Amino acid sequence: MKTRKKVVVLLSGGLDSTTLLWYGLDRGWEVRAVTVNYGQRHSVELLMATYQAKKAGVPLWIVDLSGLSKGLPGSSQTDPSVPVPEGHYTEETMKKTVVPNRNMILLSIAVGHAIGHEFDGVAYAAHAGDHVIYPDCRPEFTRRLARAIAIADWRKIRLFRPFVRKTKADIVRLGASLGVDYAYTWSCYQGGDVHCGNCGTCVERREAFLLAGVPDPTSYAETAKPLEQLLKRS
Amino acid sequence: MKTRKKVVVLLSGGLDSTTLLWYGLDRGWEVRAVTVNYGQRHSVELLMATYQAKKAGVPLWIVDLSGLSKGLPGSSQTDPSVPVPEGHYTEETMKKTVVPNRNMILLSIAVGHAIGHEFDGVAYAAHAGDHVIYPDCRPEFTRRLARAIAIADWRKIRLFRPFVRKTKADIVRLGASLGVDYAYTWSCYQGGDVHCGNCGTCVERREAFLLAGVPDPTSYAETAKPLEQLLKRS
Repeated sequence: MKTRKKVVVLLSGGLDSTTLLWYGLDRGWEVRAVTVNYGQRHSVELLMATYQAKKAGVPLWIVDLSGLSKGLPGSSQTDPSVPVPEGHYTEETMKKTVVPNRNMILLSIAVGHAIGHEFDGVAYAAHAGDHVIYPDCRPEFTRRLARAIAIADWRKIRLFRPFVRKTKADIVRLGASLGVDYAYTWSCYQGGDVHCGNCGTCVERREAFLLAGVPDPTSYAETAKPLEQLLKRS
Repeated sequence: MKTRKKVVVLLSGGLDSTTLLWYGLDRGWEVRAVTVNYGQRHSVELLMATYQAKKAGVPLWIVDLSGLSKGLPGSSQTDPSVPVPEGHYTEETMKKTVVPNRNMILLSIAVGHAIGHEFDGVAYAAHAGDHVIYPDCRPEFTRRLARAIAIADWRKIRLFRPFVRKTKADIVRLGASLGVDYAYTWSCYQGGDVHCGNCGTCVERREAFLLAGVPDPTSYAETAKPLEQLLKRS
């Protein structure tokens, strides 16, 4: 008999990690979800993560790291004095949205959770789109981190990145085939009641649905510009 | 002109990391200290860290991770239902005092702090005594982690472990030569008003002063047993 894989899923409430949650369940994983509140502007993500975990029937641990923002300066996600960049991401605008060393912080906590619950490993939704620009999303960084994580406990802990060769459009196509309800996911960095449609992550989101040929169920603000106009800028 | 090294020091308020703080200042480092409150019983450590940072004139960031204890079960440091083991450490009793993946969590946050402040790296007080027993204190784990940390940002981030070949007695001898006031450091896991003198870290502390030939300025509880008796048990 095959043993069921026990995996901690890093669930942000965004499009990629929500797809990962349903992908893992479809593969038969026993899942525990971890969501981190690191004082980000777009805390509606937390509501989305809660909704998805509840719907999936998996335990969700919401970790309060809101105290981190004081010591990790310079990111527009945690520092209200830094404006959120508009339009498609470039290296310069990306830098402004990075919480310093965010992935390592999230992964180290998820690994602690996995060790504490005697789980086999941690999965997160790194994908082909974010490799190049965030230093801590580069495959080489993750490979090195995985080698450390493997020996962080007496038992071997694994790091799963099943989407690492997928684009965001591939992920949306996969999620649609699994019946993921993307209306209850959140991407926008502006933190309004609906997606602004104009910031970097909104543009990525809109583009992914377009390229995947999947209807976009997202409500965008009335001030959202036509996607073609936003894509031209980059 | 030699540039001053800018280093984030992980300062727990214990004996080793306090020595590291003063060692770094003696070497001419520009220091920022980071202390993590992860909901541990011995929060008097935080007061000691605050005292030492203030005395040293370095900025101290106290990170509140007390929410972590809910998701990292099984450690006697965060889970009041697990009794604190007495006497010298053995592998089994050590396991009970480990916050799962603690070092990686602390280091990842300190690295984020270093990146945010454009510092050169992070120093922590790993020493020869704790290698064998905690999986995340083993030199191989730290080597692997250092290789990941090096590329966690666009700039190279370094991991300094100047005490890695020192015993606790060596550290006490070094600190005494630097004038470190060990009366304002904390080791005990029991969380009383004074050191209990009997738990694993108290025994290590007492032994280190003894072996270093340095007078121990610590106030121990009246119920503290003779050191010889406690050492015999291990």
